[in-house]
Amino acid sequence: MSRIAYVNGRYLPLNRASVHVEDRGFQFADAVYEVIAARGGGLIDEDMHLKRLHRSLGELRIAAPMSDAALKLVMREVLRRNGIVDGTLYLQVSRGSAPRDFPFPKSAKPSLVMVARRGRGPAAALIENGVGVITLPDIRWARPDIKSVALLPNALGKQRAKEAGAYEAWQVDRDGNVTEGTSSNAWIVTADGEVVTRRADNSILNGVTRLGLIGLLAREGLKLVERPFSVAEAKAAREAFLTSTTNFVLPVVSIDGTPVGNGYPGSTVRRLRAIYEEYVVTQEPVP
Amino acid sequence: MSRIAYVNGRYLPLNRASVHVEDRGFQFADAVYEVIAARGGGLIDEDMHLKRLHRSLGELRIAAPMSDAALKLVMREVLRRNGIVDGTLYLQVSRGSAPRDFPFPKSAKPSLVMVARRGRGPAAALIENGVGVITLPDIRWARPDIKSVALLPNALGKQRAKEAGAYEAWQVDRDGNVTEGTSSNAWIVTADGEVVTRRADNSILNGVTRLGLIGLLAREGLKLVERPFSVAEAKAAREAFLTSTTNFVLPVVSIDGTPVGNGYPGSTVRRLRAIYEEYVVTQEPVP
Repeated sequence: MSRIAYVNGRYLPLNRASVHVEDRGFQFADAVYEVIAARGGGLIDEDMHLKRLHRSLGELRIAAPMSDAALKLVMREVLRRNGIVDGTLYLQVSRGSAPRDFPFPKSAKPSLVMVARRGRGPAAALIENGVGVITLPDIRWARPDIKSVALLPNALGKQRAKEAGAYEAWQVDRDGNVTEGTSSNAWIVTADGEVVTRRADNSILNGVTRLGLIGLLAREGLKLVERPFSVAEAKAAREAFLTSTTNFVLPVVSIDGTPVGNGYPGSTVRRLRAIYEEYVVTQEPVP
Repeated sequence: MSRIAYVNGRYLPLNRASVHVEDRGFQFADAVYEVIAARGGGLIDEDMHLKRLHRSLGELRIAAPMSDAALKLVMREVLRRNGIVDGTLYLQVSRGSAPRDFPFPKSAKPSLVMVARRGRGPAAALIENGVGVITLPDIRWARPDIKSVALLPNALGKQRAKEAGAYEAWQVDRDGNVTEGTSSNAWIVTADGEVVTRRADNSILNGVTRLGLIGLLAREGLKLVERPFSVAEAKAAREAFLTSTTNFVLPVVSIDGTPVGNGYPGSTVRRLRAIYEEYVVTQEPVP
């Protein structure tokens, strides 16, 4: 089955799916996106993703390309045409195409692109053994809370992680505190068993998996503390982990080569991974 | 004459010129660009632009899409096919198209796009009367010295300038000093007649017009000082101006509504505009 993408009203073979060279997503990073996990044919936390999409669009004053009801239909059709049950749906909205000029064009129509991909997230060995992260200065613009495609620093950071043999790079602000990974949120578990992650201010992207997990913590009797933590605190933490749409909950067992805890995934992160997987299953359509 | 763009080896009608939806320029702002002025059919400071292009590509470890000799041929052909004598040539190189993933793809081929446009820069009235700028916090990433397409903050800043009835927004760092405009470099002339502009460190894009003008100052007996200046100093300066490829040298006569000097273009900026125009003329091909 050849892959199909959606571009501005048309379903096209992926290899012929294109946008205009003057699309503002291409020339100005003037676009936002979402990545939504598909499981069992259902889209996980779809409404939370659409809510965040609207927030990003609103911050940039880009009009929604269509209603949420229509978006949901197109997303399902993209999954269907690609025969995807488990995978990810990538959705990008740009301000549209217009002769190149910095201010917002008067008459451009937002462009909408969707690409879907099969897959169930990280390999079982990564979930079982955990992953390593490196730390890097956070060199991004001041508004990473907007899920824009201005991802060049994120790509550079992830590339550095890869070259260092790590899975992710945790970005560090001027005060020495971790903001987040290049495409995931960062968490630690303290010696007291408190689950700590940075408050979702302008300095991080408020992950949908982050939000979903937060909703599950209280039920598990786990205490959440939203505050910054330093690299030193993370290295000395009992456990560490990351969350993202494609990774769900993934143990972090080393930071800059320093083992976290005993260097193996701890009991809290394993429990959180399990309850998050359960949470995902409850959203899958009944066959 | 319908407009023609160049895209990866092909000359196409502009309305059919497109890049793949998984081009990293579109999904990650993983691309760099140059804008070169054309005058009398010649490309102004072409070698300086290509040198800067190579610096940007090198910083991001993107391979050059072709040799400089070949690039020069294609640029000329784009101008020729569009019948452009005076105008601008836009050139963008991205890391290429690959299934979406943050690290650099192993096998992507850099993509090259060129679009040309007719026009001779700002209207005569703007040159004659000068323009107003507003000031804004510089919210860009830490590497604006790389001429990447991660221009979302620049577009937002220019839009704010436009809505405030200004021509440009000067961005201001945490110390209260002006870095540069959203698409131009910022300059002042002090009471002592010194010409001041920020040093080209990582905080600004080292403008080709900036460099060209610096080369002309000594000959005119003008003293250049490369140092930061604050918004307050700029408002109290004798003169202010901006430089860019499309604007050459343009007087700035108000900052956040405060007139600079007497609110009219001063003698230094008028002289610099004249010598810069002369410098451009010397590069035009002899008819």
